[in-house]
Amino acid sequence: MHLVAIGGSDAGISAALRARELDPTTEVTVVVADAYPNFSICGIPYYISGEVTHWRNLAHRTHADLKATGMKLRLDTFATDIDVAGQRLLVRNPDGSTDAIAYDELIVGTGALPIRPAIDGLEDLSTADGVHLLHSMGDTFALTESLDRIQPTRALIVGAGYVGLEMAEGLTMRGIHVTQVEMLPEVLPTVEVELGALVHDELVKNGVDVHTNSTVTKIGKTDTGLHVDGTTTDGEALTWDVDLVLVVVGVRPDTDLLIRAGAQAGPRGAVLVEETMATGLPHVWAAGDCVVTHHRLLGTTYLPLGTTAHKQGRVAGENALGGAVTYAGSLGTQVVKVFDLVAARTGLREHEATAAGFAPVSTTTTPDDHKAYYPGATPISIRITGDANTGRLLGAQLIGTRGAEISKRVDTYATALFHEMTVSAMTELDLSYTPPLGSPWDAVQMATQTWVKEHQLDAERATLTKDTK
Amino acid sequence: MHLVAIGGSDAGISAALRARELDPTTEVTVVVADAYPNFSICGIPYYISGEVTHWRNLAHRTHADLKATGMKLRLDTFATDIDVAGQRLLVRNPDGSTDAIAYDELIVGTGALPIRPAIDGLEDLSTADGVHLLHSMGDTFALTESLDRIQPTRALIVGAGYVGLEMAEGLTMRGIHVTQVEMLPEVLPTVEVELGALVHDELVKNGVDVHTNSTVTKIGKTDTGLHVDGTTTDGEALTWDVDLVLVVVGVRPDTDLLIRAGAQAGPRGAVLVEETMATGLPHVWAAGDCVVTHHRLLGTTYLPLGTTAHKQGRVAGENALGGAVTYAGSLGTQVVKVFDLVAARTGLREHEATAAGFAPVSTTTTPDDHKAYYPGATPISIRITGDANTGRLLGAQLIGTRGAEISKRVDTYATALFHEMTVSAMTELDLSYTPPLGSPWDAVQMATQTWVKEHQLDAERATLTKDTK
Repeated sequence: MHLVAIGGSDAGISAALRARELDPTTEVTVVVADAYPNFSICGIPYYISGEVTHWRNLAHRTHADLKATGMKLRLDTFATDIDVAGQRLLVRNPDGSTDAIAYDELIVGTGALPIRPAIDGLEDLSTADGVHLLHSMGDTFALTESLDRIQPTRALIVGAGYVGLEMAEGLTMRGIHVTQVEMLPEVLPTVEVELGALVHDELVKNGVDVHTNSTVTKIGKTDTGLHVDGTTTDGEALTWDVDLVLVVVGVRPDTDLLIRAGAQAGPRGAVLVEETMATGLPHVWAAGDCVVTHHRLLGTTYLPLGTTAHKQGRVAGENALGGAVTYAGSLGTQVVKVFDLVAARTGLREHEATAAGFAPVSTTTTPDDHKAYYPGATPISIRITGDANTGRLLGAQLIGTRGAEISKRVDTYATALFHEMTVSAMTELDLSYTPPLGSPWDAVQMATQTWVKEHQLDAERATLTKDTK
Repeated sequence: MHLVAIGGSDAGISAALRARELDPTTEVTVVVADAYPNFSICGIPYYISGEVTHWRNLAHRTHADLKATGMKLRLDTFATDIDVAGQRLLVRNPDGSTDAIAYDELIVGTGALPIRPAIDGLEDLSTADGVHLLHSMGDTFALTESLDRIQPTRALIVGAGYVGLEMAEGLTMRGIHVTQVEMLPEVLPTVEVELGALVHDELVKNGVDVHTNSTVTKIGKTDTGLHVDGTTTDGEALTWDVDLVLVVVGVRPDTDLLIRAGAQAGPRGAVLVEETMATGLPHVWAAGDCVVTHHRLLGTTYLPLGTTAHKQGRVAGENALGGAVTYAGSLGTQVVKVFDLVAARTGLREHEATAAGFAPVSTTTTPDDHKAYYPGATPISIRITGDANTGRLLGAQLIGTRGAEISKRVDTYATALFHEMTVSAMTELDLSYTPPLGSPWDAVQMATQTWVKEHQLDAERATLTKDTK
């Protein structure tokens, strides 16, 4: 039995690890396009900021750790074609020669590619000019090389999603003045505007020049750096002179290899897979950012996240060995730290829930993270979305300070969503309490109780049998 | 409709609030034995430590807040008897006169009393001598009065459970040298000895003189303070000279009123109630530390906790108005901060699980709270207990540093236990991840995955269909 995995990131490595764990007699080869298997690309902003002192520390496991599991790694090796009928993977070796690797089972984890938006001049500029995209370790080295060479004092970031926000923090920590340009009405567009506004304030507080409802239209070189033109949605012209431009506006699935082999495309062009991670091509599985995401509330969508890639890869690795497991599905649980704020979400926002056929209603409340009498209590903004008809919990969004245990509070909601709890039933959960860290009804429950009071109190009252009164 | 609640602490107030919320036409009277309704007795250690600057801040709600809900409060009023047939509560007023309060429904939340252990001399000593128990606001004022009067430099605490540990920290913060004496083999006996040992180390690191396997046998007055005799389980004699003694060895249910009215006693003498909080006496409900605890894994037990009292009170308040809800049950979720450590647990430990008919096996592991490459990562000791036959999650214990989000990580396990998840299925949960706050598989999942590897890998391997190889 020879299992071949393509991709050295979360999905490929997770699949390979699971296969080796389940059957140490299985031969496992991982084909990696670069020299950096199992690197944490989520950690790149913290390397750029200087908080991670050496890029090698970004490896989840070292090359030696991976070899010790018994898997073989073929680094700097690019998968060019899948010969499905012949069960062979065609590759280009580091020296330019080609090879065919025979497999019994193949797992494809080619991941995603950074989106290059339509900006005039962007195609003609490169990292040598201080214009960067950021997704891979190669991109990271190019950026640090620019930072060393240019010694920028002014940078402009196109995009204010997770990576854009983390990079705004990272470049600010290096003493660089950051201008951040976001097309949508508010930064962190994955959360409600009223919550994104809190992150916006945090950016401004830390010296970031934030432009929302604004698009970068043109980038050009000047004698001293880069000139950037933009426009607001109102048509107002914007211009900036900076030393460095970073374009981080999201990713698209890297599906070329699979589509050419005959796989089908689904939402946003990602490869359609079953919940078993089967592609429909015999003996070919796929996982991670290159495939669609099964979502427990939305069905089949595309929502690339490292946590999801780990889970999908694990499922693919098990099934490739003859297992019969399925990916349980995503809830889109996400968290980001931006300076001293943490923002998290799980499940659906109202517009997503409406599109999925629910009847969402929401309530935002700001319970303290712990008892106000104990020093250091801070409010957490929590927005609960539930179904008006069934009372089912549909989603939660949380923003608060770094010490407020936001990232693990969202996990309680994620676990509740996993089990299709009602908002009301959250009150039944036996959550922990000590005054320095919580409340007798945890903030998680105070938020759901407020939702119930606003949206279900009349229904609760109607259940009382009036004859006892 | 007149609802009367006895008790100004969690259960009584929670019941009264729920009743007023559900039916603002219901007249609600709360009979409170002292002058401190809705005070957070869990916060007392932080008032003693000086972190809470005024005792009034310990109120969850002020007297005015409570009145604003429309409930009536009768303070310093002691419930002496329940006339069940006549639906009247007999009380002694602050001026010594007696009264009978007619009720349609009665909710009893008399709470618990501190246990006074058998120590020679204890009966003859009082707060005037610097010997204290600690449970109520009255006890708190007596203790602060002693602290002001005696200006102790040396204190001895009998007991190293939650309150004992918090008080060790609180008195240490006041500059008092603390000796802590625990009868059992390790401090914080609610967790495994190997985890309690970490708390022990934290106490020692902060200057507390800890004696485990040791019993205080005698307390007596001297010219300058108090002389305490003890013995180790090996029979070795111990003696201490201190200025203050605090005895905090747990509580027992305060059931006198209900038992005299005809209610039945259950585990540890607590009043037996249905999951509806019905006592079996017509129109009499009870909730909180005076009643038994329905536990989702253990059945009927006694496990007094503020979080439980809040939930039970809420159920009693609703059902007294004609509702038909049940208390969903406790999982014994608890957390305590001891200096810079946080210890938490939920569900069962092995000996409890064995007694309940499970086949528990456990694994302790120490995953980092977040990615090691990001500054400040610290290990969390996590002990997972699961059923060897069914794979069901039975319990989790966690100890780590204060910033490691222990208290909300235990909540993920508590929510999983609520839904009777298997240890293995924890891997399917879509938990949040960002490098400064977590890992792609959160510490919660790394711990459960290690349990699965140790106890179920052979079973997982057996599920692979061998013909695909």
